[in-house]
Amino acid sequence: MTADLDHLPITILGAGLIGIGWAALFAHHGARVTLWDPQPETLKTAPDRLAKPRADLTELDGHGPRGDIHFVSDIAAALREPALIQENAPESIPVKHALYAEIETLAPPEAILASSTSSLTWDDLAPGLTDPQRLITAHPFNPPHLVPLVELYGPDPARLDRAEALYRAAGRVPVRLNIPATGHIANRLASALWREAVHIVAEGIADVEAVDRALMHGPGLRWSVLGAHMAYHLGGGAGGIAGYLDHLGPSQERRWQDLGTPRLSPEIKDTLIAGVATACAGRDIATLEAERDAALIALLRARAKPQT
Amino acid sequence: MTADLDHLPITILGAGLIGIGWAALFAHHGARVTLWDPQPETLKTAPDRLAKPRADLTELDGHGPRGDIHFVSDIAAALREPALIQENAPESIPVKHALYAEIETLAPPEAILASSTSSLTWDDLAPGLTDPQRLITAHPFNPPHLVPLVELYGPDPARLDRAEALYRAAGRVPVRLNIPATGHIANRLASALWREAVHIVAEGIADVEAVDRALMHGPGLRWSVLGAHMAYHLGGGAGGIAGYLDHLGPSQERRWQDLGTPRLSPEIKDTLIAGVATACAGRDIATLEAERDAALIALLRARAKPQT
Repeated sequence: MTADLDHLPITILGAGLIGIGWAALFAHHGARVTLWDPQPETLKTAPDRLAKPRADLTELDGHGPRGDIHFVSDIAAALREPALIQENAPESIPVKHALYAEIETLAPPEAILASSTSSLTWDDLAPGLTDPQRLITAHPFNPPHLVPLVELYGPDPARLDRAEALYRAAGRVPVRLNIPATGHIANRLASALWREAVHIVAEGIADVEAVDRALMHGPGLRWSVLGAHMAYHLGGGAGGIAGYLDHLGPSQERRWQDLGTPRLSPEIKDTLIAGVATACAGRDIATLEAERDAALIALLRARAKPQT
Repeated sequence: MTADLDHLPITILGAGLIGIGWAALFAHHGARVTLWDPQPETLKTAPDRLAKPRADLTELDGHGPRGDIHFVSDIAAALREPALIQENAPESIPVKHALYAEIETLAPPEAILASSTSSLTWDDLAPGLTDPQRLITAHPFNPPHLVPLVELYGPDPARLDRAEALYRAAGRVPVRLNIPATGHIANRLASALWREAVHIVAEGIADVEAVDRALMHGPGLRWSVLGAHMAYHLGGGAGGIAGYLDHLGPSQERRWQDLGTPRLSPEIKDTLIAGVATACAGRDIATLEAERDAALIALLRARAKPQT
């Protein structure tokens, strides 16, 4: 299934960091975006905060936004006609359920209701609707206008197909879960990796900056072109993953036993904070974000080129 | 400290996959490489197996090899004058210890003896030498001619400084461990991530291909430009890592509790093998490696460009 975002009405609920990223992205790809937020102050500062993701997308794709963004404080107006409602409310079940009650009253029933939730699951959110089939979870990875992944779960395959087509039309890479899980896929993987990263620092094996450099110039770089399972397929020689599991499965299981289970004690927290400060080398968060985004844009442009 | 590889004698012990990668890399950057292997057949096929890494490096940097490679079956000749000995013997302590006894007899004492060992540590290897100060571990990440990371450990800071300068001159990113650890840094992180990747498949949350796609287009991509610790610094809002640890540390610890501890049972192995086969979509290992390397070259070229 393919979709065309041209003039398609898409409503973004919540104009925080994630909502701003979605709004910039969908407008860039031609949608008629309505951006709603219950806080007048948040809505007022939204145009300024949209400037950077818009500029990033223009740099990435070589063209400016093909759609537009309307800023709306009236939720009834925001929900009148969207094909997709991307919900970015605070990560609170009661807050999201209250919003869903309004959506069910005000929005067209065929609209896809997609929650950007990171820490909650479809099972947490579905009880807020009389018709839970409307709901999917669609979790982006920060910064959402640049990182292509969107993790999807929903019980209605036809609705998921329509949603996937919309995200693909916005240049996203949708990935489906078969059952809901806390942290979806990506944050589970990130959490598992970070636990060991904390352990390495806590044990004094290497400092914060060394761990991050090893990741960026080693497995992180390789995982950006080759997944973890496939890496072991290629690491198994001619026998592939089957050969790997036969010959090196037992040593991998022993290595799992050797991995750490650190606590975020006050001492470890202080070590992490000091290590990050060293790694920052005086750069503030805005500078680090700008460096991250420039590097992501360079990599995404390299990926987009057809390989010769 | 900086180093010039031009005409520098470097000896590579072992002409398997890793040794071939090192030989191509150092010769590309100007060294006079001696490649030794005890198996005549391995040495005989080495020139053919060097063709691909050499072509990759030419494509990456836009120039051909600036040094050369000599194929030597006599270990005394191979060890006569190297500044660096990169050892890639099988991952067996007795095999490496026996080789180290020859090195100590035949090589100049000031030569750096660097082991590429992946699964052993400096503590395992040092008893093979009467002067263990000679030895460092210098673990590359596959494919070693393209992935920049080299993980270093050794007890002699001056020797480590010299080694770092040589690896940097070959375009590598050296990272130092403070104490030896099984799996160094990168394979500990990779092992921790893969454990959860296996758990996600084992629990039916998502299939092999979905997990790999989520990694490549989400955290993997981001980790190639931003380390795991720094990612939480940027995820903490204005408060940085300290704010993150205060506000979200407890939920991160809860998530750690929720991560899996799978076994590589026959059933899981079959699921992984079948999932990888689906993800391969008929591509054989050589094709997958060629795709991986082409993608790595494109990313490394994008990284090398100065950011505007």
